[in-house]
Amino acid sequence: MPGPVGEIDTNRSVCFNGLVPPTRRPQARAQRTRQQIIEAAATAFAARGFEGVALNDIVRASGLTKGAFYFHFASKEELALAAFRAKQEELLGHLTGERALAGTGAGQGAGALEALAALLRRRAELLAADPSLRCVTRLGGDLMTRHGPGSEFEEFQELALDLIAGLLARGQREGCIRRDLPPRQTAETIFAAIIGIDQLSQLVSHGEDLPQRTGELLGLLIPALAAPAATAADLPRNRHYQ
Amino acid sequence: MPGPVGEIDTNRSVCFNGLVPPTRRPQARAQRTRQQIIEAAATAFAARGFEGVALNDIVRASGLTKGAFYFHFASKEELALAAFRAKQEELLGHLTGERALAGTGAGQGAGALEALAALLRRRAELLAADPSLRCVTRLGGDLMTRHGPGSEFEEFQELALDLIAGLLARGQREGCIRRDLPPRQTAETIFAAIIGIDQLSQLVSHGEDLPQRTGELLGLLIPALAAPAATAADLPRNRHYQ
Repeated sequence: MPGPVGEIDTNRSVCFNGLVPPTRRPQARAQRTRQQIIEAAATAFAARGFEGVALNDIVRASGLTKGAFYFHFASKEELALAAFRAKQEELLGHLTGERALAGTGAGQGAGALEALAALLRRRAELLAADPSLRCVTRLGGDLMTRHGPGSEFEEFQELALDLIAGLLARGQREGCIRRDLPPRQTAETIFAAIIGIDQLSQLVSHGEDLPQRTGELLGLLIPALAAPAATAADLPRNRHYQ
Repeated sequence: MPGPVGEIDTNRSVCFNGLVPPTRRPQARAQRTRQQIIEAAATAFAARGFEGVALNDIVRASGLTKGAFYFHFASKEELALAAFRAKQEELLGHLTGERALAGTGAGQGAGALEALAALLRRRAELLAADPSLRCVTRLGGDLMTRHGPGSEFEEFQELALDLIAGLLARGQREGCIRRDLPPRQTAETIFAAIIGIDQLSQLVSHGEDLPQRTGELLGLLIPALAAPAATAADLPRNRHYQ
């Protein structure tokens, strides 16, 4: 059962290959080394994608011997999954930690539809501001086509899907979101649309126009999700709604 | 200036490398060979993606010598672009040729919003029925992350974007689509959402649930696009609207 964002253990299959160092101190040092490798790899994958990164370059930059490196990550695929997961958790951790979920500084009372809009806008801002976070969009796009049903990468998507589905269900209880929409399937459609704008933005502008595309997506999503009873005054403000 | 669907010349940079065979008959034969290579490659890329296909296997299956093969396609990248383009044109040719644009057999009078819904539903059916067409979704996903701004692949997307933007503009003239939505940007958002469901469907079901995901996307798109004046009776029928 997954815990809350930020507490999820990602070491299941990609860390240490089942070998446990004998004492605590080496373990702590190994953990730091692992984090440093992941950080460097995330920045490289975010800039050049899966194919554009040579594992040998990451090994060389780590300052480790090949043997020591492979103790942490047995393959580029393992390293890519770990880098994606770390940056996905970091991005979602920022979003939930900043209480964007509760609306733009307006507390829980702001409504789930406003919270969802604020979440997507803030996501685009964070991705624009921190190049290493674009590991989630650029490397995520590559991994999306490399993995299939039943894969660990497929399971990684649950974190984002749970977040969106939870907001939709909350909005339905509050009355601001259409009750005829099944939260889980609708979350998958919204998530797919986000993946799509990530990739189109990467193709046409190296990701730079993501904040604008996010605004345009919200211009369609908000009226699509809003319950019929919601008046114009209840709708989140957006450039299509000002 | 691109011509109508089905007449677009894709040989610009990916065919013959500037060499022109001396007589008509060899040229016709070369064209047939080229088409056979593209067809075989499209099926392989649709099943296994860009990375999963070895160019040597395609060369071997073509029955040509390496030299003769490279006369047609100098690299896997060139072959992949040609296969994507051919299947994209075939898919769009089916959709426009079947007059799905004019609505589900109801002629031009059916309205542009209904025509757009019919187009997306028919697209999903065609992709489900013909494995080689999935070159557009599976290989398209791979090429999306391999190419960037200014690339030939970016330009290839204009065909689909023009089609959607044209329908949106027609719907605005007819009064069934919101007039505050800029057709081009809105077409890009819709196109991105389609790319996203293609890829999520590939990840979780090898593309098999695309018809269902298309229905769920339409459940959000139709109310998002519909002009406020449109009554429930004007809206295209969808499983969320029956």
